[in-house]
Amino acid sequence: MKIGVVAPASRLEPETAERVSALAAERFGERLAIQFHPQCFESEGHFAGSDSARTKAFLEFANDEGLSAVWFARGGYGSGRIAQAVLDGLKQAAWRKLYLGYSDGAFLLGGLHRHGFHAVHGPIPHDIRRDGGDAAIARALSFLLDRASESLEPSIDGTKPTAAFNITILSHLIGSGLMPELSGHVLMLEEVSEHLYAIDRSLCHIVTTESVKRAAGIRLGRCSDVPPNDPEFGQTPEEIVRHWCRVAGIPFLGPADIGHDVDNKIVPFGFLKDLP
Amino acid sequence: MKIGVVAPASRLEPETAERVSALAAERFGERLAIQFHPQCFESEGHFAGSDSARTKAFLEFANDEGLSAVWFARGGYGSGRIAQAVLDGLKQAAWRKLYLGYSDGAFLLGGLHRHGFHAVHGPIPHDIRRDGGDAAIARALSFLLDRASESLEPSIDGTKPTAAFNITILSHLIGSGLMPELSGHVLMLEEVSEHLYAIDRSLCHIVTTESVKRAAGIRLGRCSDVPPNDPEFGQTPEEIVRHWCRVAGIPFLGPADIGHDVDNKIVPFGFLKDLP
Repeated sequence: MKIGVVAPASRLEPETAERVSALAAERFGERLAIQFHPQCFESEGHFAGSDSARTKAFLEFANDEGLSAVWFARGGYGSGRIAQAVLDGLKQAAWRKLYLGYSDGAFLLGGLHRHGFHAVHGPIPHDIRRDGGDAAIARALSFLLDRASESLEPSIDGTKPTAAFNITILSHLIGSGLMPELSGHVLMLEEVSEHLYAIDRSLCHIVTTESVKRAAGIRLGRCSDVPPNDPEFGQTPEEIVRHWCRVAGIPFLGPADIGHDVDNKIVPFGFLKDLP
Repeated sequence: MKIGVVAPASRLEPETAERVSALAAERFGERLAIQFHPQCFESEGHFAGSDSARTKAFLEFANDEGLSAVWFARGGYGSGRIAQAVLDGLKQAAWRKLYLGYSDGAFLLGGLHRHGFHAVHGPIPHDIRRDGGDAAIARALSFLLDRASESLEPSIDGTKPTAAFNITILSHLIGSGLMPELSGHVLMLEEVSEHLYAIDRSLCHIVTTESVKRAAGIRLGRCSDVPPNDPEFGQTPEEIVRHWCRVAGIPFLGPADIGHDVDNKIVPFGFLKDLP
């Protein structure tokens, strides 16, 4: 299997790519080839190259018959700036592959799911830099190669479609052409480095949308590195999510094993069985 | 004239209210009476009392025939949590008064403007705590009492409807029942304490909305206390706004004299001439 890596948002360090390639070779040998697009290492301000460079690289790999998956090098910020241009340029070969990422990458995953492409939430190359990051990378690759069931978020039983989002990113999809239909989905949410008041504000926004109101329910992943709230917010992230679920009449279904960490699990957008 | 102050978001210190009352008495004597609702000083977690306490106080003052204006004590966070309940409870007397606030208060101002009430962006009681804050308070009160033209944002010439928003808050209105129609409006934007990448992300979101695409143009106020971006973002706030105006085909009209500071000017939502 051949996997292509592009960077739709922030830049990847070449050394990070080397570590991922070495890990893949050690664990999976000749079963797997990972191709890092040179665009991953470009730099323009905040981004891994200009909007047009990132769009071009994404489309080159998405429309390449020889690749089975497009893996997003890193989150950060920038996917939303190119997502519509990417969707406009996808061709036949793009339907037959998986798109794997999370965090800022959900601008693309959301838009891809909206249009019926195979989007998947899960670990990305940049995660190898975390303590214990090898496990996250191996989990992602095991899923891409073998659909390894131990890579999956453990509540997923195949009976309902699923989706996973960073809370802030989902709030920024609302009303845009990237917002997917989430009716009947188990919606898993996670967050990193946002104040509790900002998490509450995003959820207040998210539950106003009809698409989310029709979800089968919400599960909450980890909200990590939350800065101090002044004054004390007075509610935990789970209490916040339970509150907004109650207000909007959406079932709260419990925890999700996802987050900005090495334990972050795989969550398909839609049904697992529909993946190629 | 009698003005009522409520706190739809964060709590006001009683000492701040005393300073505002003293300033009003000194500058305007018996022409003006300011009534601080006791709810301003309540506290529940992040907020000036529970959602129901804040809603009740807002409606009590908005529906009071004896008040000419409802002034929002402070921004912070919380207006969006009660805005729909407030709109649902407004009665006849609520049509004949002004609603003055900014920042988080724009959740309410946006919803009020959507439904034809008289919303106004401008300084709020909490601003008296800034260095030189007396001038901001006097500006707000001069406008409420006398529609003082020197209180107005200087580009306002009465030929076009106007509106002013904190960038993050406007992004959070999109798709909700609080988003006003902005066709033909000169839209003035400002921000505080947000990273440049987050300002860019919000603008990318804002210009996707049809309502904003039909605006007469965008003016940019001050973006203050911007935390360092890693890496350097590579664009100033004005360059960011110019970029998104160009992408969406919205005229960029130059600076606006608004922001989270003592120079923040008055901007009516809609036409100045339509204010009571």
